[in-house]
Amino acid sequence: MVKKVVIVGGGIAGIYVLRNLLARREDGLDLTLLKRERSGWVSTCGLPFALRGWYEIKRTEINEPKFFIDQGVDFRTETEVTELNLETKTVKIATGEELAYDYLVIATGRAPSVPEAVANTELEGISTFNNEDDARKIEAAMAGAENAFVRGRGIIGLQAAVAFASKGLKTTVLGGPPSLLPASLDPDMGDIVKKWLEEKHGIRFILERKEITAVRGEGGRVKSVVIGDGEEIPAEVVVIARGMRPNVRLAVDAGIATGDSGGIVTDSAMHVRRGRGYLRDVFALGDCTEVIDGITHRPRLSQLASTAVVQSKVVADNIISDIRGEPSLYSISEPCLSPTVAEIGGLLVGSVGLTTEAAARAGIKTLSGTATKLVKARYFPGAKPLTMKLLFEAYSHKLIGAQMVGESTVAERVNELEMAIRAGMTAEEIRNTERCYDPSLSLLIDVTIDATEKAIGITPVY
Amino acid sequence: MVKKVVIVGGGIAGIYVLRNLLARREDGLDLTLLKRERSGWVSTCGLPFALRGWYEIKRTEINEPKFFIDQGVDFRTETEVTELNLETKTVKIATGEELAYDYLVIATGRAPSVPEAVANTELEGISTFNNEDDARKIEAAMAGAENAFVRGRGIIGLQAAVAFASKGLKTTVLGGPPSLLPASLDPDMGDIVKKWLEEKHGIRFILERKEITAVRGEGGRVKSVVIGDGEEIPAEVVVIARGMRPNVRLAVDAGIATGDSGGIVTDSAMHVRRGRGYLRDVFALGDCTEVIDGITHRPRLSQLASTAVVQSKVVADNIISDIRGEPSLYSISEPCLSPTVAEIGGLLVGSVGLTTEAAARAGIKTLSGTATKLVKARYFPGAKPLTMKLLFEAYSHKLIGAQMVGESTVAERVNELEMAIRAGMTAEEIRNTERCYDPSLSLLIDVTIDATEKAIGITPVY
Repeated sequence: MVKKVVIVGGGIAGIYVLRNLLARREDGLDLTLLKRERSGWVSTCGLPFALRGWYEIKRTEINEPKFFIDQGVDFRTETEVTELNLETKTVKIATGEELAYDYLVIATGRAPSVPEAVANTELEGISTFNNEDDARKIEAAMAGAENAFVRGRGIIGLQAAVAFASKGLKTTVLGGPPSLLPASLDPDMGDIVKKWLEEKHGIRFILERKEITAVRGEGGRVKSVVIGDGEEIPAEVVVIARGMRPNVRLAVDAGIATGDSGGIVTDSAMHVRRGRGYLRDVFALGDCTEVIDGITHRPRLSQLASTAVVQSKVVADNIISDIRGEPSLYSISEPCLSPTVAEIGGLLVGSVGLTTEAAARAGIKTLSGTATKLVKARYFPGAKPLTMKLLFEAYSHKLIGAQMVGESTVAERVNELEMAIRAGMTAEEIRNTERCYDPSLSLLIDVTIDATEKAIGITPVY
Repeated sequence: MVKKVVIVGGGIAGIYVLRNLLARREDGLDLTLLKRERSGWVSTCGLPFALRGWYEIKRTEINEPKFFIDQGVDFRTETEVTELNLETKTVKIATGEELAYDYLVIATGRAPSVPEAVANTELEGISTFNNEDDARKIEAAMAGAENAFVRGRGIIGLQAAVAFASKGLKTTVLGGPPSLLPASLDPDMGDIVKKWLEEKHGIRFILERKEITAVRGEGGRVKSVVIGDGEEIPAEVVVIARGMRPNVRLAVDAGIATGDSGGIVTDSAMHVRRGRGYLRDVFALGDCTEVIDGITHRPRLSQLASTAVVQSKVVADNIISDIRGEPSLYSISEPCLSPTVAEIGGLLVGSVGLTTEAAARAGIKTLSGTATKLVKARYFPGAKPLTMKLLFEAYSHKLIGAQMVGESTVAERVNELEMAIRAGMTAEEIRNTERCYDPSLSLLIDVTIDATEKAIGITPVY
């Protein structure tokens, strides 16, 4: 018997559920994906680099809708879902059409919180930066612009700012105090990023508790923003990239539970909760859901493509198993550590686990060590410094967080330290770890060992 | 009361014990280091790159002897130790002088097995490649040479071969069957390296059970080598870099135990064994010792600078604790996994844990998965492929080995997978691991996940 799977949302989360289901080649699967944007499978994280001119926006579209349609998927773009009805097991779209489902997958993503003064304007040149449609709007606004303004000091905000600055726009970033990328970096580490962006890219930062209070325009286009109770900053391009919140309206209207984080609550198999129980046939994943933190064991948001990809395998496996009448063996046995990495104007920024502030909020006492060291022997070309900060739980000495900034090797080190956190490795164990060594590639005693030794009060022998 | 520490050997192992002791700034320590070579602290692993012309040999001398002498160390170069007397607690050197010790550290390193036909010749142009003195000999022989011959297909042999080939010498490497770097790589992975070196560097490989049976010369200099029962290969430079064996003669003569591996036996605090017990005041570390394998839990050789560096901390800590009359808390709690990485003519080769053959020898059944993938999104510059092979224990699915070849990110991935092995992570856990993602730096689902999924029979969704 044919089973209908309807996926709401075509970001990484929705697309990866679709791709996993297609890869399973299960007979009798009827697949529908409904998305609001115009494209197929887009590498959203590649968009900021397109604005920097590294390649065209089109290049980030890995597959057009046709790719999926040709495989028999009812792949609908520019389609707005207006209602999920869990009683009748139908999804209603803006045209009024209702689509029946056997399995519903909610992958509605997230959206920035738009300040009131911005939400109420009709001026062109102002945009969020959430998808490929936004990228096209921003690209259009950049043409001929001389000034840019970014609201938000997270990865997307900073990557947008770098794109503007590298195209010669005078760029201002407004974010809260005290420093950049607070979800990933402690202030001392965030300040390294700030200094880099000020010095190498001429970006101005306003890190104060201020909001955009007005936007002013001319001929229907934005010309400046006013912040707090006074300063007016010229800007022909304005990007809002702050306060990313899960898109949960459809889910909430359907009676699905959300948590304190604002995200949809799921069990370990990504089933949603409604009333007292989890629903066998309704799944949620990606930026719209909350996850269980791997260290605090409490719910939070993750909102990373890398988290969604792991969840997508769980969803696909549970759907297939349910269809077959077999128990699924697949749940998320590993709680979330949210490893992140970002290239921000030539500086690579990485983190995994808790920041000092996040640990304190969770009542976890920490020891920390910070070290700066070249990534390989100084007599080799490309021997650039990397600064690493490691956080250990003060009693057990277990690694609970890592932050780093440098010009190379950051992504791989984040993955390494994620393994160390998952493994519950202590500072003493990490200190005793052999590090693979070739002077043209690495150091015999590298920055990880130095930062670890500092955290436990040992002077590193470099 | 002054305590005398005598360190025999000035390679990485000996130097790092010295440096750790110096860093502890313990009062009343009288430090002596005796080494055969002419230099101070040399980055031996940097020498092959000097032969390629990346920098001068001198550049690999990180500190001259004066650096240590100025800190009050009796640092003696060109000094041959002839006897260790554990009864009188003295070390005799070639001049006949006897030095008393309270703590003796044996760091006598290793040496290649030199074929008989080579050992018996006086011809110039033939050398081992074990230290800076050897490097100078080889450099001298390279001047004006047109042909080079390398006996040995390990890291040192191949790096020497690349140096010769990149200087325009017609280069031949003789090693046993079936493939390159057998200590680190399975034959399928070793063949990738072989093909690279043949195609990019024009190196000829003879991988057969043959030995050098004669060397022929002219005017006191080598001109050719004869292998097996016939072929004569022109060579004005010959390097012997095979069958590295621990230098244990001094230790054995002093009654210190060695194991089946040929290395000195130690306890977890690096004390040597003599008769039935371990000696509180005699330590051994580095290439001359055997280690306990982290997976098989059986003794073997490691012979890596990275292993010696971890051991050096243990030795220094145990000496200081013993002097203070305190119990040392420091032993090697983590058995050895020997992560390795090497740059071999532009190709990076890495490994950690067991190869398929080493696993089979230890009676361990394996599952393996191999995948090739770009290290980052294909629309970014420098997106080069990396091939990874992962080995899992067949019953528990725990990771027990990783091998990789590629043009970047290898060192950091080796360290990551070392953490995963130490942590006892299973294929299923690794498959569920979030990977930090920025398309300019990494992939959402990277080669590690693909290789893992293949090992357990799942088709990767790329």
